[in-house]
Amino acid sequence: MTDIAAAPKQGDEGAPDAWLVLEPWVLEGPEGIEVGDEVIVVTWLDRANRDVLQVHPRGDDSRALRGVFGTRSPHRPKPIGLHRVEVLSIDGARLQVRNLEALDRTPIVDLKAVLSRDIDER
Amino acid sequence: MTDIAAAPKQGDEGAPDAWLVLEPWVLEGPEGIEVGDEVIVVTWLDRANRDVLQVHPRGDDSRALRGVFGTRSPHRPKPIGLHRVEVLSIDGARLQVRNLEALDRTPIVDLKAVLSRDIDER
Repeated sequence: MTDIAAAPKQGDEGAPDAWLVLEPWVLEGPEGIEVGDEVIVVTWLDRANRDVLQVHPRGDDSRALRGVFGTRSPHRPKPIGLHRVEVLSIDGARLQVRNLEALDRTPIVDLKAVLSRDIDER
Repeated sequence: MTDIAAAPKQGDEGAPDAWLVLEPWVLEGPEGIEVGDEVIVVTWLDRANRDVLQVHPRGDDSRALRGVFGTRSPHRPKPIGLHRVEVLSIDGARLQVRNLEALDRTPIVDLKAVLSRDIDER
Protein backbone atom coordinates (compact mmCIF):
# COMPACT_ATOMS: atom_id res chain seq x y z
CA MET A 1 0.00 0.00 0.00
CA THR A 2 1.70 3.19 -1.14
CA ASP A 3 -1.17 5.67 -1.67
CA ILE A 4 -2.11 7.39 1.58
CA ALA A 5 -5.53 8.42 0.28
CA ALA A 6 -6.42 4.84 -0.72
CA ALA A 7 -5.12 3.27 2.48
CA PRO A 8 -7.80 1.60 4.57
CA LYS A 9 -8.69 3.50 7.74
CA GLN A 10 -8.47 0.30 9.77
CA GLY A 11 -6.83 -3.03 9.09
CA ASP A 12 -10.05 -5.01 8.92
CA GLU A 13 -11.33 -2.70 6.19
CA GLY A 14 -9.41 -4.20 3.29
CA ALA A 15 -5.71 -4.15 4.15
CA PRO A 16 -3.71 -6.64 2.07
CA ASP A 17 -1.46 -9.15 3.81
CA ALA A 18 1.91 -7.60 4.53
CA TRP A 19 5.45 -8.56 5.52
CA LEU A 20 7.08 -7.11 8.60
CA VAL A 21 10.83 -6.98 7.97
CA LEU A 22 12.82 -6.80 11.20
CA GLU A 23 16.45 -5.76 11.40
CA PRO A 24 18.86 -8.71 11.73
CA TRP A 25 20.11 -7.61 15.17
CA VAL A 26 16.66 -8.15 16.73
CA LEU A 27 16.27 -11.68 15.36
CA GLU A 28 15.78 -13.11 18.87
CA GLY A 29 12.99 -10.64 19.64
CA PRO A 30 10.14 -12.56 17.97
CA GLU A 31 11.16 -15.98 19.35
CA GLY A 32 8.09 -17.68 20.77
CA ILE A 33 5.64 -15.92 18.46
CA GLU A 34 3.77 -18.57 16.48
CA VAL A 35 1.68 -18.65 13.33
CA GLY A 36 -1.88 -17.79 14.29
CA ASP A 37 -0.87 -15.55 17.18
CA GLU A 38 -2.14 -12.02 17.32
CA VAL A 39 0.39 -9.30 18.08
CA ILE A 40 0.36 -5.52 18.31
CA VAL A 41 2.63 -3.80 15.81
CA VAL A 42 3.79 -0.35 16.92
CA THR A 43 4.81 1.85 14.00
CA TRP A 44 6.09 5.36 13.36
CA LEU A 45 3.65 6.87 10.85
CA ASP A 46 6.32 8.78 9.01
CA ARG A 47 3.99 10.35 6.45
CA ALA A 48 1.53 11.75 9.01
CA ASN A 49 0.94 15.47 9.50
CA ARG A 50 2.49 16.26 12.88
CA ASP A 51 1.09 19.80 13.10
CA VAL A 52 -2.49 18.62 13.60
CA LEU A 53 -4.27 18.64 16.98
CA GLN A 54 -7.88 18.41 15.75
CA VAL A 55 -9.40 16.27 13.00
CA HIS A 56 -12.75 15.33 11.54
CA PRO A 57 -13.11 11.69 12.66
CA ARG A 58 -12.41 9.27 9.79
CA GLY A 59 -11.71 12.26 7.52
CA ASP A 60 -15.48 12.93 7.29
CA ASP A 61 -15.95 16.71 7.07
CA SER A 62 -19.57 16.35 8.18
CA ARG A 63 -18.39 15.19 11.60
CA ALA A 64 -17.39 17.78 14.19
CA LEU A 65 -13.70 18.49 14.82
CA ARG A 66 -12.30 16.48 17.67
CA GLY A 67 -8.96 16.48 19.45
CA VAL A 68 -6.65 13.90 17.88
CA PHE A 69 -6.00 12.17 21.23
CA GLY A 70 -9.62 10.99 21.29
CA THR A 71 -9.30 9.46 17.80
CA ARG A 72 -7.12 7.01 15.90
CA SER A 73 -6.14 9.51 13.23
CA PRO A 74 -2.54 9.01 12.04
CA HIS A 75 -2.13 12.78 12.18
CA ARG A 76 -0.89 13.83 15.63
CA PRO A 77 2.24 15.34 17.17
CA LYS A 78 3.97 12.00 17.83
CA PRO A 79 2.56 9.77 15.10
CA ILE A 80 2.70 6.34 16.71
CA GLY A 81 0.55 3.69 15.00
CA LEU A 82 -0.95 0.67 16.75
CA HIS A 83 -2.01 -2.29 14.66
CA ARG A 84 -3.46 -5.51 15.97
CA VAL A 85 -2.54 -8.16 13.40
CA GLU A 86 -2.57 -11.94 12.98
CA VAL A 87 0.69 -13.74 12.15
CA LEU A 88 0.30 -15.75 8.94
CA SER A 89 3.86 -17.03 8.51
CA ILE A 90 7.34 -16.54 9.92
CA ASP A 91 10.55 -16.60 7.90
CA GLY A 92 13.49 -15.66 10.12
CA ALA A 93 13.34 -11.93 10.67
CA ARG A 94 10.28 -11.56 8.39
CA LEU A 95 6.73 -12.03 9.64
CA GLN A 96 3.75 -12.12 7.29
CA VAL A 97 0.65 -10.60 8.88
CA ARG A 98 -3.03 -9.98 8.17
CA ASN A 99 -4.89 -6.72 8.89
CA LEU A 100 -1.99 -4.26 8.87
CA GLU A 101 -3.26 -0.81 7.84
CA ALA A 102 0.04 0.89 7.05
CA LEU A 103 1.82 2.30 4.03
CA ASP A 104 4.75 0.39 2.56
CA ARG A 105 8.07 1.06 4.32
CA THR A 106 6.42 2.49 7.45
CA PRO A 107 9.06 2.05 10.19
CA ILE A 108 8.31 -0.61 12.82
CA VAL A 109 9.05 0.56 16.36
CA ASP A 110 8.02 -2.47 18.41
CA LEU A 111 6.00 -5.68 18.56
CA LYS A 112 4.01 -6.73 21.62
CA ALA A 113 1.82 -9.57 22.82
CA VAL A 114 -1.91 -8.89 22.96
CA LEU A 115 -3.06 -8.99 26.59
CA SER A 116 -6.47 -10.04 27.78
CA ARG A 117 -6.76 -6.59 29.32
CA ASP A 118 -6.40 -5.07 25.88
CA ILE A 119 -9.19 -7.27 24.69
CA ASP A 120 -11.65 -7.77 27.53
CA GLU A 121 -14.60 -5.46 27.59
CA ARG A 122 -14.65 -4.24 31.15
CA MET B 1 4.91 4.87 41.78
CA THR B 2 8.66 5.40 41.84
CA ASP B 3 10.09 1.95 42.65
CA ILE B 4 10.49 -0.14 39.49
CA ALA B 5 10.61 -3.42 41.45
CA ALA B 6 7.36 -2.65 43.27
CA ALA B 7 5.51 -1.45 40.19
CA PRO B 8 2.54 -3.60 39.21
CA LYS B 9 3.14 -5.69 36.10
CA GLN B 10 -0.21 -4.63 34.68
CA GLY B 11 -2.49 -1.73 35.50
CA ASP B 12 -5.32 -3.83 36.85
CA GLU B 13 -2.95 -5.40 39.40
CA GLY B 14 -2.91 -2.54 41.89
CA ALA B 15 -1.83 0.62 40.10
CA PRO B 16 -2.86 3.78 41.98
CA ASP B 17 -4.84 6.48 40.16
CA ALA B 18 -2.49 8.80 38.32
CA TRP B 19 -2.44 12.19 36.62
CA LEU B 20 -1.38 12.53 33.00
CA VAL B 21 0.16 15.98 32.57
CA LEU B 22 0.15 17.14 28.96
CA GLU B 23 2.26 19.98 27.63
CA PRO B 24 0.31 23.25 27.19
CA TRP B 25 0.83 23.33 23.43
CA VAL B 26 -1.22 20.14 22.95
CA LEU B 27 -4.19 21.40 24.99
CA GLU B 28 -6.56 20.89 22.05
CA GLY B 29 -5.49 17.27 21.62
CA PRO B 30 -7.75 15.73 24.30
CA GLU B 31 -10.87 17.75 23.33
CA GLY B 32 -13.82 15.39 23.11
CA ILE B 33 -12.44 12.89 25.62
CA GLU B 34 -14.95 12.58 28.46
CA VAL B 35 -14.89 11.29 32.02
CA GLY B 36 -15.56 7.57 31.90
CA ASP B 37 -13.96 7.10 28.48
CA GLU B 38 -11.22 4.55 28.06
CA VAL B 39 -8.13 5.64 26.19
CA ILE B 40 -4.78 4.11 25.31
CA VAL B 41 -1.79 5.94 26.77
CA VAL B 42 1.42 5.45 24.78
CA THR B 43 4.53 6.03 26.89
CA TRP B 44 8.30 5.93 26.52
CA LEU B 45 9.51 3.60 29.29
CA ASP B 46 12.62 5.62 29.99
CA ARG B 47 13.92 3.36 32.75
CA ALA B 48 13.69 0.13 30.72
CA ASN B 49 16.72 -1.93 29.75
CA ARG B 50 17.06 -1.48 26.00
CA ASP B 51 19.74 -4.15 25.52
CA VAL B 52 17.33 -7.02 26.20
CA LEU B 53 15.87 -9.22 23.47
CA GLN B 54 14.76 -12.18 25.63
CA VAL B 55 13.04 -12.25 29.02
CA HIS B 56 11.45 -14.64 31.47
CA PRO B 57 7.73 -13.75 31.16
CA ARG B 58 6.54 -11.63 34.13
CA GLY B 59 10.09 -11.80 35.56
CA ASP B 60 9.49 -15.40 36.66
CA ASP B 61 12.81 -17.28 36.29
CA SER B 62 10.96 -20.61 36.26
CA ARG B 63 9.40 -19.68 32.92
CA ALA B 64 11.39 -20.25 29.74
CA LEU B 65 13.10 -17.30 28.05
CA ARG B 66 11.01 -15.77 25.34
CA GLY B 67 11.69 -13.06 22.76
CA VAL B 68 10.54 -9.70 24.09
CA PHE B 69 8.32 -9.03 21.06
CA GLY B 70 6.01 -11.86 22.17
CA THR B 71 5.66 -10.35 25.67
CA ARG B 72 4.67 -7.08 27.31
CA SER B 73 7.97 -6.68 29.15
CA PRO B 74 9.05 -3.04 29.41
CA HIS B 75 12.57 -4.16 28.51
CA ARG B 76 13.02 -4.05 24.71
CA PRO B 77 15.02 -2.10 22.16
CA LYS B 78 12.41 0.65 21.67
CA PRO B 79 10.63 0.73 25.05
CA ILE B 80 7.15 1.91 24.08
CA GLY B 81 4.50 1.29 26.74
CA LEU B 82 0.78 0.78 26.01
CA HIS B 83 -1.69 1.36 28.82
CA ARG B 84 -5.45 1.09 28.52
CA VAL B 85 -6.84 3.40 31.19
CA GLU B 86 -10.15 4.90 32.27
CA VAL B 87 -10.46 8.68 32.51
CA LEU B 88 -11.57 9.72 36.02
CA SER B 89 -11.42 13.50 35.71
CA ILE B 90 -10.17 16.20 33.36
CA ASP B 91 -8.61 19.49 34.44
CA GLY B 92 -7.36 21.38 31.40
CA ALA B 93 -4.17 19.68 30.24
CA ARG B 94 -4.27 17.20 33.14
CA LEU B 95 -6.22 13.93 33.00
CA GLN B 96 -6.68 11.70 36.02
CA VAL B 97 -6.78 8.03 35.05
CA ARG B 98 -7.27 4.60 36.59
CA ASN B 99 -5.13 1.53 35.82
CA LEU B 100 -1.93 3.20 34.64
CA GLU B 101 1.03 0.94 35.36
CA ALA B 102 3.90 3.35 34.92
CA LEU B 103 6.57 4.96 37.06
CA ASP B 104 6.21 8.62 38.01
CA ARG B 105 7.48 11.02 35.35
CA THR B 106 7.38 8.42 32.57
CA PRO B 107 7.14 10.48 29.35
CA ILE B 108 3.80 10.35 27.53
CA VAL B 109 4.16 9.94 23.77
CA ASP B 110 0.54 9.82 22.62
CA LEU B 111 -3.09 9.22 23.61
CA LYS B 112 -5.51 7.29 21.41
CA ALA B 113 -9.13 6.18 21.35
CA VAL B 114 -9.78 2.51 22.10
CA LEU B 115 -11.22 0.86 18.98
CA SER B 116 -13.64 -2.03 18.96
CA ARG B 117 -11.03 -3.93 16.97
CA ASP B 118 -8.58 -3.56 19.83
CA ILE B 119 -11.18 -5.03 22.12
CA ASP B 120 -13.25 -7.57 20.22
CA GLU B 121 -12.20 -11.15 20.54
CA ARG B 122 -12.11 -12.34 16.94
